[in-house]
Amino acid sequence: MRELEERIRRDGIVEDGNVLKVDGFLNHQMDVELFAAMGREWARLFSREEVNKILTIEASGIGIACIAAQQFGVPVVFAKKSRTKNIAGEVYRTEVPSFTHGGVSTVIVSKRFLGPADRLLLIDDFLANGAALEGLIDLARQAGAAVVGAGIAVEKAFQPGGERIRAKGVRVESLARIRSMEGGRIEFC
Amino acid sequence: MRELEERIRRDGIVEDGNVLKVDGFLNHQMDVELFAAMGREWARLFSREEVNKILTIEASGIGIACIAAQQFGVPVVFAKKSRTKNIAGEVYRTEVPSFTHGGVSTVIVSKRFLGPADRLLLIDDFLANGAALEGLIDLARQAGAAVVGAGIAVEKAFQPGGERIRAKGVRVESLARIRSMEGGRIEFC
Repeated sequence: MRELEERIRRDGIVEDGNVLKVDGFLNHQMDVELFAAMGREWARLFSREEVNKILTIEASGIGIACIAAQQFGVPVVFAKKSRTKNIAGEVYRTEVPSFTHGGVSTVIVSKRFLGPADRLLLIDDFLANGAALEGLIDLARQAGAAVVGAGIAVEKAFQPGGERIRAKGVRVESLARIRSMEGGRIEFC
Repeated sequence: MRELEERIRRDGIVEDGNVLKVDGFLNHQMDVELFAAMGREWARLFSREEVNKILTIEASGIGIACIAAQQFGVPVVFAKKSRTKNIAGEVYRTEVPSFTHGGVSTVIVSKRFLGPADRLLLIDDFLANGAALEGLIDLARQAGAAVVGAGIAVEKAFQPGGERIRAKGVRVESLARIRSMEGGRIEFC
């Protein structure tokens, strides 16, 4: 999506270690008009899929998911990073390794909000190693819900997550796919 | 706001210890059409305040804040619960005690996204003891930003947060104010 690519070129900051900072408009300060344009694009791409719910993960996916959900006319469920003990049986639970912070997060969704009748669109801000997205796919599988695809804002196509998830048969629609950031120069696929 | 009160009566669940669960529509599964109605109400209430940014805190404030921001035509900044060490000087930082999880969270905002030119509307899903909202007010004060007020979805008016924050001169507009939940029966102010 040209609008997102141009914004990344203009306001994205490349840091050491293949880190792309887009915190001026995507995941700390958030440009909700840009999010609405992204939501319209996913609504066009997934128009035939009868999406009835959007599933995302806290925290930076939530804003994008909520604004995209308005285009689909569906509710959002966000998977929570669990800080408390939950009674067994109440929640679906999965483990997501964090490449940013190190360690592993336990991520949960209440069983009341995911089930076999759901046709889920997964939404997240970034796809790199794919750990968060694989966690969401695992939660959907536990619930018996169908995953119609994933809408990603920024995919680092030089990292293995996108390829691995597409190889599982999940449709992934990334609005900006970065081929390389060598020398601080961002090239899109 | 009648629509929110009716929804709380219909789908809210009162649990032991004055806990009100609204996770079916507000802070786990999220009804974005309801959020849009809430956003329109805050836009009406704060129409003369020249709000130029919305400040919220992760995670459950983000969805409400993003959809409200569309009504104001402004960006959202969310304060992050810090899990990593940040270089001193890069961020504003405050401490927020958690009554849900116990302990204290360090909450940060990048200095790049808050400053003296900002006229902030604070948004959050709940106001009870007021700890999260006081954290946001402290971040705004450090940045030299003006706080024009706070938009809260659900205020537990029998807990001290709302009174304490109004006593500081901050305008608080809560769309549903709960006077009592005794015996599981929800009464609004």
